[in-house]
Amino acid sequence: MTVENRDVPQPVTVLGLGEMGAAVAGVFLASGHPTTVWNRTPEKAEALVAGGALRAATVRDAVTAGEVVFVSVKSAAAASRLLEEAGGALAGRTVVNLTDCTSGEAKETGRLAAESGADYLHGQIMTIAPALGAPESVVFFGGAESVYDRHRPLLDLLGGKGALVAADPGAPVLYGMAVHGTMWGILNGFLHAAALLKDEGIELKRFLDHAGPSLTALTSFLPSIADEVDRSQYAAQYGALRHHLPSIDDLLRESRARNVADHLPAHTLFLVTQAIADGHADDNYSRMIDYFAER
Amino acid sequence: MTVENRDVPQPVTVLGLGEMGAAVAGVFLASGHPTTVWNRTPEKAEALVAGGALRAATVRDAVTAGEVVFVSVKSAAAASRLLEEAGGALAGRTVVNLTDCTSGEAKETGRLAAESGADYLHGQIMTIAPALGAPESVVFFGGAESVYDRHRPLLDLLGGKGALVAADPGAPVLYGMAVHGTMWGILNGFLHAAALLKDEGIELKRFLDHAGPSLTALTSFLPSIADEVDRSQYAAQYGALRHHLPSIDDLLRESRARNVADHLPAHTLFLVTQAIADGHADDNYSRMIDYFAER
Ligand SMILES: NC(=O)c1ccc[n+]([C@@H]2O[C@H](COP(=O)([O-])OP(=O)(O)OC[C@H]3O[C@@H](n4cnc5c(N)ncnc54)[C@H](OP(=O)(O)O)[C@@H]3O)[C@@H](O)[C@H]2O)c1
Ligand SMILES: NC(=O)c1ccc[n+]([C@@H]2O[C@H](COP(=O)([O-])OP(=O)(O)OC[C@H]3O[C@@H](n4cnc5c(N)ncnc54)[C@H](OP(=O)(O)O)[C@@H]3O)[C@@H](O)[C@H]2O)c1
Repeated sequence: MTVENRDVPQPVTVLGLGEMGAAVAGVFLASGHPTTVWNRTPEKAEALVAGGALRAATVRDAVTAGEVVFVSVKSAAAASRLLEEAGGALAGRTVVNLTDCTSGEAKETGRLAAESGADYLHGQIMTIAPALGAPESVVFFGGAESVYDRHRPLLDLLGGKGALVAADPGAPVLYGMAVHGTMWGILNGFLHAAALLKDEGIELKRFLDHAGPSLTALTSFLPSIADEVDRSQYAAQYGALRHHLPSIDDLLRESRARNVADHLPAHTLFLVTQAIADGHADDNYSRMIDYFAER
Repeated sequence: MTVENRDVPQPVTVLGLGEMGAAVAGVFLASGHPTTVWNRTPEKAEALVAGGALRAATVRDAVTAGEVVFVSVKSAAAASRLLEEAGGALAGRTVVNLTDCTSGEAKETGRLAAESGADYLHGQIMTIAPALGAPESVVFFGGAESVYDRHRPLLDLLGGKGALVAADPGAPVLYGMAVHGTMWGILNGFLHAAALLKDEGIELKRFLDHAGPSLTALTSFLPSIADEVDRSQYAAQYGALRHHLPSIDDLLRESRARNVADHLPAHTLFLVTQAIADGHADDNYSRMIDYFAER
């Protein structure tokens, strides 16, 4: 089963045919891989079966049909239950779990797979379903390098920018969370600001015409912040926390004056005020890691 | 005084010689403009005087010496007090206020200047002091187009990417706040995520090697979000709020499991849960503007 034969496309299995699982199965079908599918609600397999997929009646049958078993369901608990149901049928196969969860849950699912004699990779998909398989789509993988390398041609079908980030199956989950957490930060910060602009009657398109480049430039600071955090060196030459403080206060007062939600600037002001009280007024914003690292 | 003579560089005045005011005066000096300076603590003028600046003993003397009067002090209240002190000496001059404040304060300072017979522009500097005057540096201006156009050659010296964004002197302030608010969003989101990565012992440099492009791509969503908000059209085809919910919950549980501050994901979860309860599960994240717009 681990002997590779490049002439015969590897048979794969996909468990879970929601929005993402169906896209995963679709990618393999389109590449000519014999693709066996299973979904708790069997009707969801119909379009794929019409497109050439094989429908399995049980999780065990589905797992038996594929060398590599992809799992894409609602929760880590559901994924674990499927692996338990498959049990010994998993031996000698590779499980690629694409189900979003915490890093602890990914490690736990990996342990379950190993107990059944399967290799395990955790895959964190960083795109929406319709972009799966696109050259620019990113998937972070975690697991043994040998397993990743063995299945590389298959895994690369999911996205042109796939990468093994660590041997730990929890690492890709943390990578994904870090990107998403930064995303919610930017979305919330932007939408809060947008509420202020709208209150003044300023069209956002007009704002972006002028401010677009300033917004795009914001992510360019991240490497130097990362470097400061990695080295625990926070001393600022310019743009220290004491320079941030009055501008945060302006944003807070502007929000209150316009009856716009003040939660975000109030929280930022609270944290930065605390850092300054702790003697960090002349440090860069990277110092704020200390105020997120402790609960 | 409003007659232009391109052969004689326009005399300018700078009130306030803190980190930014000194940089402003330095830019004009370097371009050969007769530059008169004043600072509450006179010693701060010394380096500039050694470089050719003229020191004025009083605010009135300083204002009388320049056709265009730049103001860069700690607060709107301090800026207003200086304009009051200058009083009638401002008549026929142009005040360019570079002091950070709220939009209401900018409008108010503009009214004060007008009462003394001066034209008024508010300038929101989007760079740190040492980058002032650089070709890529952004300054948002608000005020009458005729005033901006008349002083364009002078104003362009402050940054190669200067722009008049509106006739309202409060508008550049809101533009600046919107960029800064988005910046604190991204910084806080990233540093919170960084706390999770560090807790697992993952070097941020290594994370950025893999995830850098995903982070850089985040700002590319802003134009479509802006468009949805401008049109009040939030219906999602993919990536709706109901898809965000489990990932926000994962981030919250991960934070708690690692004893990392849970404030940011808890707040995001609270808002998105509320939006879903209000029937917006199938809307894009842009719908969240409603939850920032009302306090
Ligand atoms: N959709 C995206 O764009 C996207 C992007 C990145 C990551 N993801 C991740 O991909 C995974 C799947 O998401 P999705 O969007 O495909 O979700 P979805 O459309 O809501 O589908 C959920 C799937 O999970 C199955 N399921 C739920 N509970 C189950 C259980 N107890 N036992 C067996 N199967 C169960 C459902 O089966 P039934 O059909 O029987 O209900 C369905 O196949 C999630 O972890 C999600 O976070 C999705
Ligand atoms: N520094 C930057 O990189 C930067 C970037 C963007 C925007 N800004 C904005 O530029 C403005 C000036 O900032 P800065 O960095 O230059 O601040 P700073 O270095 O702290 O200097 C503050 C200046 O304000 C003066 N001042 C304070 N209270 C005064 C009063 N009641 N009357 C008269 N003068 C008074 C101070 O005079 P004394 O010397 O007598 O104390 C000093 O000249 C602020 O609005 C700031 O937000 C700064």
